[in-house]
Amino acid sequence: MEDKMPITPRTLSGFKDRLPKEAYAKSQMLKSIINSFEKFGFSPIETPHLEYAEILKKQGSDEIQKEMYHFFDHGNREVALRFDLTLPLARFISQYKNDLGLPFKRYCIGNVFRGERAQKGRYREFTQCDFDFIGTESLGSDIEILQVIYQTLSDLGLKNFTIHINNRKIFNGLCQSLNAESYTAEILRIIDKIDKIGKDSVTKELQDKTPLQKEQIQVLLDFISLKQEGDSLQFLSSLNHYKNINPTLKEGLEELESLCEILSKLIPQNFYTINLSIARGLGYYTGIIYETILNDLPNLGSVCSGGRYDNLTQNFSNDKMSGVGASIGLDRLLAGLEELNLITQNTPAEAILIPLNNLQYAYTFAQNLRNLGMKIEVYPEITKPQKAFKYANNKGYKWVIITGENEESTNTASLKDMQSGEQKDQLSLQTLSQIILDS
Amino acid sequence: MEDKMPITPRTLSGFKDRLPKEAYAKSQMLKSIINSFEKFGFSPIETPHLEYAEILKKQGSDEIQKEMYHFFDHGNREVALRFDLTLPLARFISQYKNDLGLPFKRYCIGNVFRGERAQKGRYREFTQCDFDFIGTESLGSDIEILQVIYQTLSDLGLKNFTIHINNRKIFNGLCQSLNAESYTAEILRIIDKIDKIGKDSVTKELQDKTPLQKEQIQVLLDFISLKQEGDSLQFLSSLNHYKNINPTLKEGLEELESLCEILSKLIPQNFYTINLSIARGLGYYTGIIYETILNDLPNLGSVCSGGRYDNLTQNFSNDKMSGVGASIGLDRLLAGLEELNLITQNTPAEAILIPLNNLQYAYTFAQNLRNLGMKIEVYPEITKPQKAFKYANNKGYKWVIITGENEESTNTASLKDMQSGEQKDQLSLQTLSQIILDS
Repeated sequence: MEDKMPITPRTLSGFKDRLPKEAYAKSQMLKSIINSFEKFGFSPIETPHLEYAEILKKQGSDEIQKEMYHFFDHGNREVALRFDLTLPLARFISQYKNDLGLPFKRYCIGNVFRGERAQKGRYREFTQCDFDFIGTESLGSDIEILQVIYQTLSDLGLKNFTIHINNRKIFNGLCQSLNAESYTAEILRIIDKIDKIGKDSVTKELQDKTPLQKEQIQVLLDFISLKQEGDSLQFLSSLNHYKNINPTLKEGLEELESLCEILSKLIPQNFYTINLSIARGLGYYTGIIYETILNDLPNLGSVCSGGRYDNLTQNFSNDKMSGVGASIGLDRLLAGLEELNLITQNTPAEAILIPLNNLQYAYTFAQNLRNLGMKIEVYPEITKPQKAFKYANNKGYKWVIITGENEESTNTASLKDMQSGEQKDQLSLQTLSQIILDS
Repeated sequence: MEDKMPITPRTLSGFKDRLPKEAYAKSQMLKSIINSFEKFGFSPIETPHLEYAEILKKQGSDEIQKEMYHFFDHGNREVALRFDLTLPLARFISQYKNDLGLPFKRYCIGNVFRGERAQKGRYREFTQCDFDFIGTESLGSDIEILQVIYQTLSDLGLKNFTIHINNRKIFNGLCQSLNAESYTAEILRIIDKIDKIGKDSVTKELQDKTPLQKEQIQVLLDFISLKQEGDSLQFLSSLNHYKNINPTLKEGLEELESLCEILSKLIPQNFYTINLSIARGLGYYTGIIYETILNDLPNLGSVCSGGRYDNLTQNFSNDKMSGVGASIGLDRLLAGLEELNLITQNTPAEAILIPLNNLQYAYTFAQNLRNLGMKIEVYPEITKPQKAFKYANNKGYKWVIITGENEESTNTASLKDMQSGEQKDQLSLQTLSQIILDS
């Protein structure tokens, strides 16, 4: 035993522990999010954290590939930790498509891993909440994904957010009309950086890396900076004359019109807007796309993004499989809710019981309160009251229940309000529980 | 593109996807388990799936060490996937003990990884639900862990299970009295296999690998095969004369007496029993220990086991940190609930709405039902009714809501009971929702 040096307790750089307060907030968020998903009949699926590396390789950007955790397992198979939930979904759909039935809607909540350079607010392991509708091109599925975004964020207590909606076809049509169709992906990638690097740098980069002329770039940037005034349908009708430019662009605008006609009955207008500058850098989107901004925290970035794609399962088969879906960045959203003070409850229980003499009486009293539907912690030791009260205070309890000799002999408990300092002695189970429930 | 061969969609051997029905059952279980934990004021914590390998090395059995997934990351650090939630807890407690405050109670639900030889019902990634009470030696914490086991399994709908309780001190005392104290761990390991390999093989192995004589082995095996008759307190008092054998054994029996006195007021006697043969092979237990058997499925093995330990953080510091905790084997429990037909609901939603003509009317009607608190799926396409009905049937829906022209013109919907085949036409929102809620 002498040679056993203590090991320093530490986490890997870029990885995060969550202490109870934060983990509880996250678990409450997840409960709410799952409930919102289920309101629409989304079912969960689960896939492993580890996949054959070939399932995940050659996907996503070069950067994501470099950041992937991969290694050889006990059976000398090359395996990798998933870096998103989309590639496992594509593998899952391809593997079980005969059992699942189409259209297939599912949500999936899980951790993903990217060995990114460590920086503030970015972690190498983080939680994604994806919800997708696979195997249908119906506008209904686009509508529902947007409804779920609205419902989910509203259910979390958010009251001031905007879903920015665009259609990739509008952009594709524009690029076609400028004879730059084969550069569409590159143009999108550059345009996507406009908020970060500004209009001048975007112009310069487009000039350097694409065949677009300065005037063409101007046309493009002017178009995407058109801002919605009035409601979405009014704005779209003000764009009618652009439909002549190109059939793809026309299709894109018309899809948005059909979408907004129905959306206007389902989501209050102040929660969504047409925003022609939304690009979604990822190559696989082909139709309606969206990002969601908390208006009080514009710098947080999008908390829920997604859109329609045409060919989810292309690596696994030649069957085209289209779908629409979105992903909530849970860690970012949690940071946002914390900053907006929308996370208030620290501890799952409503009150703590401090036993002063008899554990049996204390545990029975607590259990009777639980049987009335309350959540009750019991301080597990008979100790100096100060020590137990300090513990209750540190955990943020408003209500402390005390059972001592007097309470036991009268089959009651006393109740202290830690905020006002007021204590009510020897209350019956019913009276005591009513006071806590009414507070 | 020509050289792009389709990749076979497959999971790694020993890893498991969960399709919606199973994943939904698991998520419902988790919701119930978390709620049970929170009734007692347990808060969650989260630790990463990846740790420095040194945190996890030289722990657990040699077998577990061989099964550990470890590799070198981008920064050439040796990292490993956690194989349980206990070592990360020990690291966590050592790292944050000044912030957490003692006693510290937490639950943690997460996946762990062991590259075991693939066999039926055993997976290389599986979910554990741990709940522990750290930094207190009070009997209160032992009681509460047992209460939580009872509450959690009851809340899941289980009505016929038994928590088998023992105290490691009884066994330690016996070994001391047989002058075999230094072989206690080895003797425990062998005894733990008695259900698998039988009494004769255990006897032989004890003769081969320990200094115990045949008569001593007989004493040991006779003692641990004493069975509870009557209630636990009666059984314990029938063991009174054993207290003279050894002070450690005496302490063990007396602790069980104190425990059962209080337990008898909190848990019905038919849900727990003293079982002197429970050994819990793991070396770190030092006090009261327990396993939980579903009596209708005795071969399933224990679905929730745990006990008291003395020195959780020994690898990280010289401070002794005792505690008590248990772990639910979620995958095993899920298999058990499925076998007992306690999992009935297949789909989160209560009904599916099939739109026959107007998506806008359909989506609005569905949202109005959701606003009444219902969970409603909408079939996302206007298509041949047979196709949509087949989809509804495959997903196991009892209720199908239909909106067509007639319904729209009367601001109603029709409702079909898929079990009886009966259809009621043109019901108002209120009438329709009442029928579903009453069913």
